[in-house]
Parts: sequence; C-alpha cells; structure tokens
Amino acid sequence: MPVDTRIIDGRLRAETLSREVAAGAERLRGATGVVPKLVTILVGEDPASKIYVRRKAEHARAIGMRSVSHHLDADLSEAALLALIAALNADREVHGILVQLPLPPQIDRVRVLAAIDPAKDIDGFHPMNVGLLASDGDGIVPCTPRGCMMLLEAELGSLQGLNALVVGCSNIVGRPMAQLLLRAGCTVSIAHIHTRDLPTLVATADLLVSAAGAPGLIRGGWLKPGATVIDVGINRVPKPDGDGTRIVGDVRFDEALGRAAAITPVPGGVGPMTIACLLDNVLRSAERLAAEGRCAAAA
Amino acid sequence: MPVDTRIIDGRLRAETLSREVAAGAERLRGATGVVPKLVTILVGEDPASKIYVRRKAEHARAIGMRSVSHHLDADLSEAALLALIAALNADREVHGILVQLPLPPQIDRVRVLAAIDPAKDIDGFHPMNVGLLASDGDGIVPCTPRGCMMLLEAELGSLQGLNALVVGCSNIVGRPMAQLLLRAGCTVSIAHIHTRDLPTLVATADLLVSAAGAPGLIRGGWLKPGATVIDVGINRVPKPDGDGTRIVGDVRFDEALGRAAAITPVPGGVGPMTIACLLDNVLRSAERLAAEGRCAAAA
Repeated sequence: MPVDTRIIDGRLRAETLSREVAAGAERLRGATGVVPKLVTILVGEDPASKIYVRRKAEHARAIGMRSVSHHLDADLSEAALLALIAALNADREVHGILVQLPLPPQIDRVRVLAAIDPAKDIDGFHPMNVGLLASDGDGIVPCTPRGCMMLLEAELGSLQGLNALVVGCSNIVGRPMAQLLLRAGCTVSIAHIHTRDLPTLVATADLLVSAAGAPGLIRGGWLKPGATVIDVGINRVPKPDGDGTRIVGDVRFDEALGRAAAITPVPGGVGPMTIACLLDNVLRSAERLAAEGRCAAAA
Repeated sequence: MPVDTRIIDGRLRAETLSREVAAGAERLRGATGVVPKLVTILVGEDPASKIYVRRKAEHARAIGMRSVSHHLDADLSEAALLALIAALNADREVHGILVQLPLPPQIDRVRVLAAIDPAKDIDGFHPMNVGLLASDGDGIVPCTPRGCMMLLEAELGSLQGLNALVVGCSNIVGRPMAQLLLRAGCTVSIAHIHTRDLPTLVATADLLVSAAGAPGLIRGGWLKPGATVIDVGINRVPKPDGDGTRIVGDVRFDEALGRAAAITPVPGGVGPMTIACLLDNVLRSAERLAAEGRCAAAA
C-alpha cells in the first residue's frame, strides 16, 4: 500500500541549527570575549573546492564568526603547509582549521590531517578524533554524518534496535556514519563496491544512508516499505533532454516516493546540514578551548 | 546435506606465529642489540587478571623477550598510575606497555589508556591507534581481532565481497574486528544486545565472528550452510551433570558441526592466538621504535 512519503527538509533544519550556532557564538562572546574563528586552507585551483571553501567562510561570517581563508599555490610544498598548520595550531585566536581536500599529489593528506591540533580539527578527520568516535569517546565528529544523524533523530526519535544500512565506506561519510549509528544502538551493516547483493541488504533496512556517489544506484523497489532514507550522494548527470546537467542522489527519488516513509531530496537534504554542522563544530571547539584557557579574546 | 566441518586449530596456528615472533626478536637483537621488552601493569587482585598478566609475561620470556610485571595495590591513585606510565613511555628500553583491564573504580580507564605512548600501546586501545585502524592508517591493531583475521585468512584466503557478521560491539573485539573485515573488503554487519532478529542476520553470513560473551547464544541451525565461524566467546558454565564448570563459546559447537564449513573450538581456538598476536605487537613496536632511533639496546 503506497504511503505518503515525507520529504525531509534539510534546508529548514540547517537554518534552525545555524540560528542556534549563531546564538551560541553570541553567548560565548558575551561571556568570554572569544569570537569563534575558522581558518580554511585551499591549495590549488580546483573549481569545486574553491566554491566549497568560499561558502564555508561566508556562512561563518554570516552567523557572527570570524573567518580567514588561505589560498595557496598548487605547487606548495608539504613542509610549507605543515608550517602554516603549526602556526595556526599555536594561534590562540584560531578555533577551527579546515584543510580543503583533495590536496595536490606532492602533499601527503594523511600527514597533513594528523598535523592539525585535534582540538581544532573541525572536520573530525584527525586519527585521534576518528578513534574517539570509534570508542565512545568525546571528540569532534565529522560534519556530514552528524548532519545525517540530526535528520534521522528528528524523523525517528530513538534509533535503538533499528536495522541501519550505510552504503559507501569512505573515511569522510560512510565509516563515521556507521560509528554514529552503532552508538545510537542500531544494528549496522556497511555495503560498498565489493558488496554482492545490495538489493537484499536494502530490503532489510529500517533506515538507509547512502554515500556511494553513484547516481540512481538504489532502486525504490528495493526499499523496505516505510524505511527512512538519507541520501548523501551529490551526483551531476546529464539532463534527460540532453540540455545541460542536473544534480541527483544515489537513490531513485521518484521510485522511493510512495514506498519510503521519509526521504531527503537532492539537493536540499543533507547538503545544507553539512555546513551548519561544520560551524557548530567550530563553536564547540571555541567553547572547549575557552573553557580550557587555551584561547584568547578577540583583539 | 551435512558437510565435514573443519575444526580450526588455533593452538597450532598460535605456535607457528610464536615461532615467527621469536625468530623476529632474535633477528632484531642480532641487528640492533634491541631485545623487545613488555611491561605489564596489574592493579588489584582480580584472579582472572592475575592469570592473564602472568601468562603474557611468561610467553614473552619463553620466546626470548624481556618482561617486567608491575603488580600494584587496588587502592592505587590514578595519579600514581599515570606517573608510572609516563616513566615507562620515557624508558628507551620499554617497547610495549600493557595495562590489564578492568581497573578499580577510582581510576579512569579512558584517561589511562590515552596516556600510553601510542607507539608502545601494544593492546591497540589508544584512541590514536583506534583512529588509525578506522581510517586505513598504520597503527597497532588489537590482538584478538588480529588473531581472528589470521584464522579467517588462513581458512578462506581473500575475504573480499564476503558477508561478514560480527556479534558484539565492544571496543576490545567487536568494533576493531568490524574495521578489519571492512578493510578486507567484506560487507560487514554488526549485531549486539539491541539487535532484533539475530537468526536472520546469522543466516546471511558467509563468515561469523561472535564476541558476545553469551554462552550458546548462536544456534547451529541459524548458520548459513558452509559458513566459517570464529567463536571469541569464553564463557564458564555449569557442567550438564552439575559436577563443576566448563568453558563454552557463544556458538553451539555441537549444532554447528555438519553445517559450518569450519569453526574454532572453545577453548583452543581464538584464545591462543591472542597472546601470540600480543607478542607480535611487542615485536613490531620494538622494530618500529628501533628504526626511529627511539629505543636503546639492552644493557
């Protein structure tokens, strides 16, 4: 029996969160004089990366944070990047350091991410933060999975005991997502490129988070009726009429309607939550550093 | 159709590994003068813990390593334990530090484990090592899951694409086990106390690792015919005739015979592998510290 599928409004939730973060930043400034400060580092000229860092910096300023963007040449040495990170680690007015990925080939991503002070690692990619997430510790959690969790909990309340399927096992989304779902008490399955029978797995999932980056990978007919679907995929595909391109998710949205209980649209679902959660991470870092006496009031 | 289930001989595999570790320790000594040294720390009088640390220390000496055991009073302060760990971190002749769990209530386990130098954290419980494992990094991997992987790979070769089920989500076994299986290309599901339909999950698993600590939880009839079963459970139960106790696993061994392709017995399966893998971790730590010039030849 077809259900009336709810479209999860990520933009609206992200706006609410952004207002909460703005209010928190204002409270912190009033109480301590500390204004949360985000520093973004972009190496090279990747067009998408340029858009991402600009957007993050603009959002930060829009909610009353400070923001500095370093845009460095594509031929930057790893040593120079590590020196910049060391300076930002030591800078008592900086609370969040974001190195935009991907990095050019002469720079070792792993070494760079591990060089960021874990307390300022607002992407949550430092091994220390990854480890805290994976062992019930209290570290910084990657933004996109955090955003997905907020949408899921707003939709479903407690997730305890639900069957959760994560499609994709990247370090940025899939794996931390699985950790969060496990912490929430879900029975968690993780599928990926080597998975042999995805439809059967999908059919058992009360909730599905897809971060495969594969347009239309998941058919609506595979879904368990009444499932909640979070689509992290952002895939650019040719329009059906051949006239330009459009953005679609990993899940066939039109097929999921009438079968899923709720689904995030692409765009307008998870995407807006990611930046709002990033800025929330900056605020939390500033709050923690201030509480530990490790940061300075704005000059 | 009943199959002839292979009993996986963990003792034999552990003996082979122990010989390899002994040979590696001898090579390291010959090349650098460094003799791998394990330091165990036991706080209090837990009888099982006493047996465990004694066994680890004895095995270390038996294969040519040095071993020192600190046995401290149950009312030890956390500060005193942290001071001991700091001294061992700084000691250039120590390559592996093992704090036996559980710790008494006045001591914060999380703080203690995080105080161990990750390069000497041969249990692999430091958040940094947890994070490296969870993000394809090169850290120290917990012993029991490593032992399970060795048994699985000896049995099955490549695990890529297999459906793996991990029962139990402790930081010590279940979670790191899931990470290793994911790295090996398995489709991984993690079940636990909140899981609603364990039999259905078990029925889909090409390989099953149970670390639930629940005697006889998993019935033989649930298994997928031809599955490979690794039973990490070590549960003491009354003998059927009421005369004393015996050790059983999480899986009904007798029921699994004729259905599973292979299964580890309890005892004699995973157990022996754990100590052998621990000593292998000590050797690897010593090798790495020696290569980095961070340790001293034995006096």
